[in-house]
Amino acid sequence: MPRKPNTEARRAEIVQALQSVMATQGYEKATIQAIAKAAGLAPGLLHYHFKSKQEILVSLVTTLADFGQRRFEQIVGSADDPMQRLSAYLEARLELGEGAAPEVVAAWVMIGAEAVRQAEVREVYQRAIANELDLLADLLAACMQRQQRATGSARELAAGLLALMEGAFLLASAAGAVMPVGYASQAALRYAVLSMETAPPG
Amino acid sequence: MPRKPNTEARRAEIVQALQSVMATQGYEKATIQAIAKAAGLAPGLLHYHFKSKQEILVSLVTTLADFGQRRFEQIVGSADDPMQRLSAYLEARLELGEGAAPEVVAAWVMIGAEAVRQAEVREVYQRAIANELDLLADLLAACMQRQQRATGSARELAAGLLALMEGAFLLASAAGAVMPVGYASQAALRYAVLSMETAPPG
Repeated sequence: MPRKPNTEARRAEIVQALQSVMATQGYEKATIQAIAKAAGLAPGLLHYHFKSKQEILVSLVTTLADFGQRRFEQIVGSADDPMQRLSAYLEARLELGEGAAPEVVAAWVMIGAEAVRQAEVREVYQRAIANELDLLADLLAACMQRQQRATGSARELAAGLLALMEGAFLLASAAGAVMPVGYASQAALRYAVLSMETAPPG
Repeated sequence: MPRKPNTEARRAEIVQALQSVMATQGYEKATIQAIAKAAGLAPGLLHYHFKSKQEILVSLVTTLADFGQRRFEQIVGSADDPMQRLSAYLEARLELGEGAAPEVVAAWVMIGAEAVRQAEVREVYQRAIANELDLLADLLAACMQRQQRATGSARELAAGLLALMEGAFLLASAAGAVMPVGYASQAALRYAVLSMETAPPG
């Protein structure tokens, strides 16, 4: 049975409240009480919508991953040129690292840190990272195919690009004041274009 | 007056204990009691050596930054060829991301996450990141000079390389299972070499 719209809205509020509390205080201090307070809801209502704090986190990871994906789809529109699609992806992701949504980026960085320690967080985070890696590898492979190059290295190249983007998010959140302005999107595009040119003809 | 060797050793034990506790439980749960227990020392002794938990953290950040720097100096030896020096730096840093010292990397990732929220952590973290950025920009500029290229873009190129490395650390700690093996050092070297080639003659 599909959930009622009201339930979806309430769940979204709770997930948003976890994001806000995590961004300032981290996952440890984001107790059910603190999340309820931020959402302006009674703690009992949180228990009605989610079995546990970890279940709220799972929902938050999915929401954050979807956030970048929706933005990508908006920018890419109906473009089917592989290079346009790759550029749209990098733009969608890296405008986040350049101040477009600092709370979203900070929450994502926090979750990465929580994933180091907590198996349940790691499982969800790894799934999101694996999805990004698949998507990026497909985008690169499509460009390489268009350039009549072998696509065997697409996944490895995608991993480097993903590391660059995740590092840019971390540095934007944790050391933004000392990083050059606007370097990340240039670096990502440069890495992608130049790396693909090293692939042999295919 | 210089500190006694015994004091240095004791302080190092305490800093190491904070690193261990953070790697598994995070900064929040790393209470003075928990750090003392991990170090096998009385809590009172920690207060004798450090004014606060944050002061132990400052010392840990310095220790971790020095860890990579010492490893770089070991590998580079007396080499003065700019490309050899850059390669040694990338090797020293990225062997960490490839499993050489997972606890060091996890602690570093945790500190980056803490830096998002806590001004006092951020101040120290940003200083360490600014140092890395300076060092990397110098290494790249030296290579570019040797290649008779303009060095004006060295700092921006260094920022992208630093993001790639920090992202590789985060992904190694938080999603290592889904990343291709050994991609990071290849990606960093590829990015550095190819990016420098885009700089105009100088």
